[in-house]
Amino acid sequence: MPSAVYIYGLHGAGEDLRWFKLMSYQQQISVTTKGHGDIHDLTEQVTSVVNASGIQTGTVNVFNVGSTAAIGTIEFEPGLQDDLPAILDNLIPPSRNYGHEQAWHDGNGHSHLQATVLGPSLVVPISDGKLVLGTWQQIFHLECDVRGRERTIVVTVIGDERQSTRN
Amino acid sequence: MPSAVYIYGLHGAGEDLRWFKLMSYQQQISVTTKGHGDIHDLTEQVTSVVNASGIQTGTVNVFNVGSTAAIGTIEFEPGLQDDLPAILDNLIPPSRNYGHEQAWHDGNGHSHLQATVLGPSLVVPISDGKLVLGTWQQIFHLECDVRGRERTIVVTVIGDERQSTRN
Amino acid sequence: MPSAVYIYGLHGAGEDLRWFKLMSYQQQISVTTKGHGDIHDLTEQVTSVVNASGIQTGTVNVFNVGSTAAIGTIEFEPGLQDDLPAILDNLIPPSRNYGHEQAWHDGNGHSHLQATVLGPSLVVPISDGKLVLGTWQQIFHLECDVRGRERTIVVTVIGDERQSTRN
Repeated sequence: MPSAVYIYGLHGAGEDLRWFKLMSYQQQISVTTKGHGDIHDLTEQVTSVVNASGIQTGTVNVFNVGSTAAIGTIEFEPGLQDDLPAILDNLIPPSRNYGHEQAWHDGNGHSHLQATVLGPSLVVPISDGKLVLGTWQQIFHLECDVRGRERTIVVTVIGDERQSTRN
Repeated sequence: MPSAVYIYGLHGAGEDLRWFKLMSYQQQISVTTKGHGDIHDLTEQVTSVVNASGIQTGTVNVFNVGSTAAIGTIEFEPGLQDDLPAILDNLIPPSRNYGHEQAWHDGNGHSHLQATVLGPSLVVPISDGKLVLGTWQQIFHLECDVRGRERTIVVTVIGDERQSTRN
Repeated sequence: MPSAVYIYGLHGAGEDLRWFKLMSYQQQISVTTKGHGDIHDLTEQVTSVVNASGIQTGTVNVFNVGSTAAIGTIEFEPGLQDDLPAILDNLIPPSRNYGHEQAWHDGNGHSHLQATVLGPSLVVPISDGKLVLGTWQQIFHLECDVRGRERTIVVTVIGDERQSTRN
């Protein structure tokens, strides 16, 4: 019977030889939103998932389940927290004229379009076990819908546990 | 000579011990479009590729080859199928004034800009062998070019075949 | 003690049997920008990283570290190199009225918003060891900030070294 050693491999050769273990790790996080324009900083929660994964080098995907909220990066300070939903409302304003409204009358045609243009999915690299983000770059979740929602965000980490060649 | 057992590994320890096999799987799908604003629901085709991969936990990347079409998620209902190309034409209208037009005269400067802003690439998580999407969230392909095109979309699944810890 | 053979595995069975090695590979690239609207073609540098990785089938993530620049794909010709920053300035114009300006007075509120809407992250598939891009589709980096910056871009390749089934 094979033992646990089979999950490890030898990468490279000679002095560059090192162990690695390639893996995936997935966890859901939840956000309760207050309605249109409510923005949350997910960086700490995504960092926790990356830490729990043990993955040192790879990427993490952050994905909003549902068609009326978006994920991205921003400098998460109060000014931009207001500016982002304001510019989206300016470009894609609430209106009863959308085809979506004429069919569904739920007042969130602009929510769908804003969320689609911004996008539900983000991929961030991981290096030495840490998210690689700028000092003033955070991962945000933006509620585009017109009412508060319970949001599920799926965080998937893929990469390996090898130590960097510096170690 | 090593036998097929080497592709399997033991993850975790004790009662949590389980087999997994990390892998990638790639397949191309094709879409025939009718020109500007033609939108297709790719969810079923992407689901087929994920099923064929056998991958249980991971991510799938859906990528449009070419610079004048886009991939994203939307509630795929008739209203929004009209609203999305309409709002893009409103924000980035057809015009002969683009630098691209003055050089190439092919009438699709707005097509390039719309496709670039929306983006050619989407990553969706996979859990228990299924795409994790909201009930009203589908994967779309939007033709931004001014004429019909034969489109190639590359679907790449990365993850592992291990059963969830619940099983 | 296990030997280097443990990193290889046998995939499939019978005549479909073939070797593969799943791995991740990460490298940083640098770009010096001249300020707002400066656009660079990263395709050659990303291709070099993919070549160095030895990965045949998988994906590559290209990520801008920092909140005022963006990554995407475009036909990298002089007309569109001007059109993209121009349309972004048209949609999200420079202004002192942004909340970000009123707090920080650094004149780059629009830079943040443009970069967030366009996004810092791109995933491109790899097939037969090559980026899968259209003939007129290149990977760009767009500086949205108001001054020149030294930019770090993280390139992460995940996939396997197996030969395609055609070989």
